[in-house]
Amino acid sequence: MSILIKNGHIIYGENLEVIKADILIEGNKIVEVARSISRSADTVIDAKGKVISPGFINAHTHSPMTILRGLADDLPLMDWLQNHVWPIEKRLTSKHIYWGGLLGILEMIKGGTTTFVDMYFHMEEVAKAVENAGMRAYLSYGMVDLGDEEKRNAEIEETLRLLDFIKKLGSPRIEFLFGPHAPYTCSPELLKWVREKATETGRMITIHLNETKNEVRSIKEKYGMTPVEFLDDLGFLGDDVIAAHGVWLSDEEIEILARKGVTIVHNPASNMKLASGVMPLERLLKAGVNIALGTDGSASNNNLDMLEEMKIAALLHKVHNLNPTVADVRTVFKMATQNGAKALHLNAGVIREGALADLVIVDFNRPHLRPINGVISHLVYSANGNDVETTIVDGKILMLDGEVLTLDEEKILGKAEEVVKKLAG
Amino acid sequence: MSILIKNGHIIYGENLEVIKADILIEGNKIVEVARSISRSADTVIDAKGKVISPGFINAHTHSPMTILRGLADDLPLMDWLQNHVWPIEKRLTSKHIYWGGLLGILEMIKGGTTTFVDMYFHMEEVAKAVENAGMRAYLSYGMVDLGDEEKRNAEIEETLRLLDFIKKLGSPRIEFLFGPHAPYTCSPELLKWVREKATETGRMITIHLNETKNEVRSIKEKYGMTPVEFLDDLGFLGDDVIAAHGVWLSDEEIEILARKGVTIVHNPASNMKLASGVMPLERLLKAGVNIALGTDGSASNNNLDMLEEMKIAALLHKVHNLNPTVADVRTVFKMATQNGAKALHLNAGVIREGALADLVIVDFNRPHLRPINGVISHLVYSANGNDVETTIVDGKILMLDGEVLTLDEEKILGKAEEVVKKLAG
Repeated sequence: MSILIKNGHIIYGENLEVIKADILIEGNKIVEVARSISRSADTVIDAKGKVISPGFINAHTHSPMTILRGLADDLPLMDWLQNHVWPIEKRLTSKHIYWGGLLGILEMIKGGTTTFVDMYFHMEEVAKAVENAGMRAYLSYGMVDLGDEEKRNAEIEETLRLLDFIKKLGSPRIEFLFGPHAPYTCSPELLKWVREKATETGRMITIHLNETKNEVRSIKEKYGMTPVEFLDDLGFLGDDVIAAHGVWLSDEEIEILARKGVTIVHNPASNMKLASGVMPLERLLKAGVNIALGTDGSASNNNLDMLEEMKIAALLHKVHNLNPTVADVRTVFKMATQNGAKALHLNAGVIREGALADLVIVDFNRPHLRPINGVISHLVYSANGNDVETTIVDGKILMLDGEVLTLDEEKILGKAEEVVKKLAG
Repeated sequence: MSILIKNGHIIYGENLEVIKADILIEGNKIVEVARSISRSADTVIDAKGKVISPGFINAHTHSPMTILRGLADDLPLMDWLQNHVWPIEKRLTSKHIYWGGLLGILEMIKGGTTTFVDMYFHMEEVAKAVENAGMRAYLSYGMVDLGDEEKRNAEIEETLRLLDFIKKLGSPRIEFLFGPHAPYTCSPELLKWVREKATETGRMITIHLNETKNEVRSIKEKYGMTPVEFLDDLGFLGDDVIAAHGVWLSDEEIEILARKGVTIVHNPASNMKLASGVMPLERLLKAGVNIALGTDGSASNNNLDMLEEMKIAALLHKVHNLNPTVADVRTVFKMATQNGAKALHLNAGVIREGALADLVIVDFNRPHLRPINGVISHLVYSANGNDVETTIVDGKILMLDGEVLTLDEEKILGKAEEVVKKLAG
C-alpha cells in the first residue's frame, strides 16, 4: 500500500520548516519528501493549496466521556463530580464505553488527531473501538484504591486483564500503559506495584498530577511532602511517566520532573473550565521539562479538538503572564505534535523520511485561513478541527476529504444518542 | 419573499428556551414560531437534527484586518504595532480594504455572524462590501487626532464623508456610527465634537476604552482622572456609546458606565493574545453593565469566529477567578447575541415573533456536538464557526448548507491573496 501526496505545503522536520513538496508513503512509513516525486502509488492525493501537518497527539483524554458532553457545566468541582459525573459513571456499562469511545475516536479522526493517550474503565471496549477505527492509542485502566487493600487487588487484577487483552489483540497501533489515577487516590503500595510492573513489562505510566491546589495540600498533610517529592521518594518517576496537568508545582518539584525526564501534559481548556489554575509553562520550559498537549475528557472541555486546544494554550499563558511573547506558535505547535511523540517514545509527530506516516491534510481554501501569511500561525490561531480534511494513521487513510472511511459515522452518532437516552431513562 | 424552517430545535426568546418548532419568515421579520406551521413559503428548509440560533453579533472588529492575519504574532505590543501593523496599514489602499473587508464578511457569514460593528479607514469600501454581501453592519471611521487641530479637521471631514456616503447608500442593513479611536488618541475637542454630532444626527458612537494599563496611566497623568471619569466629565457617555475592551476599570468607573448605560464589548481572545489583561466580568455584571462580545480584528485573534470567542470567554473568567461557576453558558451566549442587539438598539439577537430575521442554522449531526445533552452548552463549549451551515440576515438567505449565495467565495480568497502579495512586493 503506497500513498503519494502531491503539491502540498509541508510542515517538515523538527524545526517546522514549511516547504512545497510531495510526500511518498509506503507501508506505515514516510519514505520520501521531495520537490517532485514521479513514482507511482496506489493512491494519489492532490493537496494543492493545502497544508500537510504532522498528526496531532492528544496526550491526555478520557475518550468515553463524550457520553457526558454538555450534561452539566459551570458547577463547583465537587457538586459537578458528586452530583453529575460520578452517578452517571457508576451506571456506565461496556456498551456505553464502546460507543462513547468510538464517538470520541470519530471526533478525533475528523479533527486531525492521530494518536491519543486514554484513561478510563472497561478499556477493552475502547481497544476494540481503536482497532476498528484504525487509530493509534495508548490505553490505560484508571486505578483508584484509596488505601483499601481489597480494592487495590481488584484494580491490579483489572489492569493486568487489560494488559493481557491488548497483548492478545496484537495491534501495532495499540499500546497498553499503566494508569494509576493520582497520588491522592492511590496508596503508596499501589504506586510501588505500578512502578515495578511497568519496569518489568517495559510499559509506560500515565497519572494525574498536581491538578488542583487542594490535592497538593492533602498530599502534604498526609505525607509531609509535595506530590512530586512523594512520587520521587517512592522511586516512581522516570522518562516513561506521562503526568497530566501539573498546574500547581513548586520550583523544587519542577527540578525533579526535569531531572527524571517526566513529561507534563498540558490541558488548558479543562484547567480553565474547572477553574483548577494555570500550569507554570514558563518555569517548566526553562527547566527543560517536556510538555505535551491534551484535551482531557469532553465533560471538562467540551470537545477533543487539538487545534482549538493549541489556541487556548497560546492565549492563556500570554494573558496570565501579561506577556505576549510567551507560548509562541512554534512552541505550542510542538507541544501538540513532536513533544507528545517524545513522551511516548514514538517515531511520529514530525514529517520526515523514516517517520511513521501519521499525518493530516488541512484545507486552507477557507476564508478564516486566508491570506496564507503564516502556516503555523494559522494552524494555532485561526484553524479548528473542522478544517482537517484528510487523516492518515500508520500509512492508512482514515478520513479522505472529510469522509471517514473506517467507521460508519451516522451509526455512531445515532448509537451515542441512543445509549445516553437509556442511561437517563 | 418567505422562508419556512421546519423541524429544528429553536433557541427561543430572551430566556433561551430550547423548543422543537417551525419558524416562518416573511419579508425581513420572523412572523411565526409554532409547533407545526402548515402555511406555504417561497423557500422551505428542513432543519431536522439541527439547531436554529439567533445570529451572532460581533460587536467589535476591524474587518479589513484579515489582510494582516498571521503576519506577525507573539511580539511585544509596541514592536508588533510599530514594526509590523502600522507600516503595512500605511500602505493599504481602498482596494486592500475592499477585498480585506469582503474576506472578513465572508468569514463572518460562514461562521454565523449576522451583524458586526466595525472601525477602520477607507470605510466606504467596507460599506460596499457589506451591501454586496447582504450583511448587517454598523460602520465607523476610526478617528485619531493626537491633539493636532489640522489632523482633527481632516478626521472630522473623513467622518462626515462616510456619514454622507452611508446615508446616500440608503441600505436598511448598514448604519453609520462615530468612531473616535480612544481617549488617549483623541483630544477633548474631538471627543466633544463627536458627542454633539452624535446627538444631533441620532447616530451611535464606538470607542476603544481602558484596553491596557499603560493607556489608563497616561490618561491619569494627562487629565488627573481615569479615562471613564474623563469621558464622563466631557458629557460623552450615554446608552448610545459602545466601548470596546474595558479591561482595566476601577469600581468608580464601572459605576459610571452602569449609570450612563454604556455597553462594554468584551474581546477575550484579543485581550489574551496581546496580553492586555482580563476584563472584570463579575464586577461589570454585578453593576448591571450591558456586556456584548467581539472578536476584535484578525491580526490580534486571529479569526472572526464568535462561537470560538464564546468558549474563550467562558473559560477565561473561570480560571481567572478560580471559580467554575463564573461566565456560565447562558450568560456568555447572551453576550454574543441579545446583549449586542441591546447595545445597538436593534430588534434582533433573539428568535421571537416580530424580531428581525437574523438567524443561523447549526448542524448538530457532527461527532463533537453529540450526544445532544445541552444545546446552549454545545454552542458555547463544543461548536465552532464551521458548524454553521445556513445564515439568514434581514430575511434573506446569505448561506445555505455551507454555500454562500451572495458572494463568489473562490474569487474573494484569490483576491485577498493577490492584494497581500502586491503589498509585500
